[in-house]
Amino acid sequence: MFETLASDGTARRGRLTTRHGTVETPVFMPVGTYGTVKGVTPAQISDVGTQILLGNTFHLMLRPGGEQIAALGGLHDFMQWQGPILTDSGGFQVWSLGELRKISEDGVVFRSPVNGDRIDLTPERSIEVQHNLNTDVIMSFDECTNYPATEREAEVSMQLSMRWAQRCKDRHTLAKDMAETADTLPADKRPGLLFGINQGGMHEHLRRESLAALEEIGFDGYAIGGLSVGEPKDEMLAVMTNLLPHMPDHKARYLMGVGTPKDLVAGVALGVDMFDCVMPTRNARNGYLFTSLGTLKIRNARHKISADPVDPSCGCYTCSNFSRAYLHHLDRCGEMLGATLMTIHNLHYYHDLMAQLRSAIETGTFRTLSKSLHDQWNTANELV
Amino acid sequence: MFETLASDGTARRGRLTTRHGTVETPVFMPVGTYGTVKGVTPAQISDVGTQILLGNTFHLMLRPGGEQIAALGGLHDFMQWQGPILTDSGGFQVWSLGELRKISEDGVVFRSPVNGDRIDLTPERSIEVQHNLNTDVIMSFDECTNYPATEREAEVSMQLSMRWAQRCKDRHTLAKDMAETADTLPADKRPGLLFGINQGGMHEHLRRESLAALEEIGFDGYAIGGLSVGEPKDEMLAVMTNLLPHMPDHKARYLMGVGTPKDLVAGVALGVDMFDCVMPTRNARNGYLFTSLGTLKIRNARHKISADPVDPSCGCYTCSNFSRAYLHHLDRCGEMLGATLMTIHNLHYYHDLMAQLRSAIETGTFRTLSKSLHDQWNTANELV
Repeated sequence: MFETLASDGTARRGRLTTRHGTVETPVFMPVGTYGTVKGVTPAQISDVGTQILLGNTFHLMLRPGGEQIAALGGLHDFMQWQGPILTDSGGFQVWSLGELRKISEDGVVFRSPVNGDRIDLTPERSIEVQHNLNTDVIMSFDECTNYPATEREAEVSMQLSMRWAQRCKDRHTLAKDMAETADTLPADKRPGLLFGINQGGMHEHLRRESLAALEEIGFDGYAIGGLSVGEPKDEMLAVMTNLLPHMPDHKARYLMGVGTPKDLVAGVALGVDMFDCVMPTRNARNGYLFTSLGTLKIRNARHKISADPVDPSCGCYTCSNFSRAYLHHLDRCGEMLGATLMTIHNLHYYHDLMAQLRSAIETGTFRTLSKSLHDQWNTANELV
Repeated sequence: MFETLASDGTARRGRLTTRHGTVETPVFMPVGTYGTVKGVTPAQISDVGTQILLGNTFHLMLRPGGEQIAALGGLHDFMQWQGPILTDSGGFQVWSLGELRKISEDGVVFRSPVNGDRIDLTPERSIEVQHNLNTDVIMSFDECTNYPATEREAEVSMQLSMRWAQRCKDRHTLAKDMAETADTLPADKRPGLLFGINQGGMHEHLRRESLAALEEIGFDGYAIGGLSVGEPKDEMLAVMTNLLPHMPDHKARYLMGVGTPKDLVAGVALGVDMFDCVMPTRNARNGYLFTSLGTLKIRNARHKISADPVDPSCGCYTCSNFSRAYLHHLDRCGEMLGATLMTIHNLHYYHDLMAQLRSAIETGTFRTLSKSLHDQWNTANELV
């Protein structure tokens, strides 16, 4: 299901095989919370170079509901995205609810932020919902450890997540076994891959213990959770630096919820294969654009009369056709098209960055590219 | 500039030639208020069958301003729509301001609804702004007569509009003469066509007087203004029925701000060539969809689990790919993509309707088609 095609230092160039096609890694996955990447059509998502999307189990189970999406043929048919889809488990969103949720050994109880209904979310239920969504990569249900946390708090939380990981695996295995007995079930309706999520806060030995527990259970891929939750960047990098060399070589490694372009380069350097983050899409809607010359804020008055594209070296639909002045105008008037065009650009930027990194690993020039990108980012922020 | 290719009763099948290509009439023009048809890219606007767009002089002169758009190459380059564009004159929007504007012989003074600035809009200024936008069809600046209005009020208002129409023509002629002397000016930078606007309220003889005054001045096309302003449908139809037979055969006839699919069929039957209305786009954003089976309200709970497309007989991107359930879900979650997909459908519906009408006129089957459409609309509303 995962093979490494080339490596350059600890950076890996790989390929993940799913029921809906292969994914060339390292890869960035745009976030499609409610079965849509906000503001863009599936045709546009594909045109910018997207290989695999992320869907949010938490949001989709509330609206329109896993059973309903199952009745409509699964998430691929519902949203008309026929490439691979990964779904998170809902653990992170439940954690984000803060005081509004109650955690026990069994799972989490919370009030729906949509209509106030009481919702019980257990590891088994999360897997069932993801089976209903019929996604290609299913994430195990975990508790995201708070930051900061004492060592004891982080340990208790991690151990709960590992017991939940086992329950997720059991529920997934049951579904796979049932699918085995159904000869007529097409391949794309059988349960997809299941990834486990590493926790342990900022504590190296807990992260290692968590990894050992996950490997003991056995997953199709391993994710690093509980980062990008408020910790300083050097703590995040320390966790990654210590953990990644111990992760199994022959399985995909997914760094959840990360991050900036710099974070992606750092993650790839350490051997991460998969990333997701709302940053390119959310920032686009707020007029923050990623360019080869640094970040551009389209609301800045200097763009009001600029006939230049956002990034002269970018080949996306937005940069090929529209001026900064037009995007500035759309943003100022609150026109939806501004969000659409800027989302297209930012996603293209992220995907193009990953394509550059993949190519550099293949040719053994990853360090050169990484240095060149950092030089650009460090010197050019004032230019745009 | 306008030729009639076929006719069927009083319905005409024509062709308008502009600096940015020809327009097959009868035609519907989507409204692109701020240099964007809300929620859709120029590529999508083109894909649904749009031949010509309408831009709003009033809104564009406030944001980003006519001079700025001129500096960026005109409205076509600014918004990246290389087909024909018609601009209204701002008269209707000024009228909509109600008490917030002051009208004199010279023109209108009002406060900008964007920033409170005092704005002077005269017939000459409206033409200058439209020249700056460099649009293909320029509308003369008029006063939209209130409804209801006494005969005397309608007469005074109409006569003011006719004096303004002369000033618009004079200003336009001046620009054309200046362009004549500039040998190197490319054809698409020379002033476009100028249309006059008929007024006179609901009074037949005032409408006829207005038409005579406009023909005396001489325009490239003639529009009917001051309808769809709150009057009953039968009064609107009476004005059209009385006026249209007297309008010159060899010039395009444009019914402004109208209307529903039924209105379009009625207008075409009487010999109208051009229409514009916010209805398909605005209704789409509110979840009201036009279909061959009547109007569909996507928020209706019956669509929550429907795997059917909006209209099984529609070939648009939305109906070819997405279920009512998905659109219902997007609408419920306030997702932008819902507005985009529903706008694509409604515009496709309007353009497809006009294409059917054009084809029926060519084959002499307009009455048959008109009857068939009315039968559908009158019986099928309960189906969706």
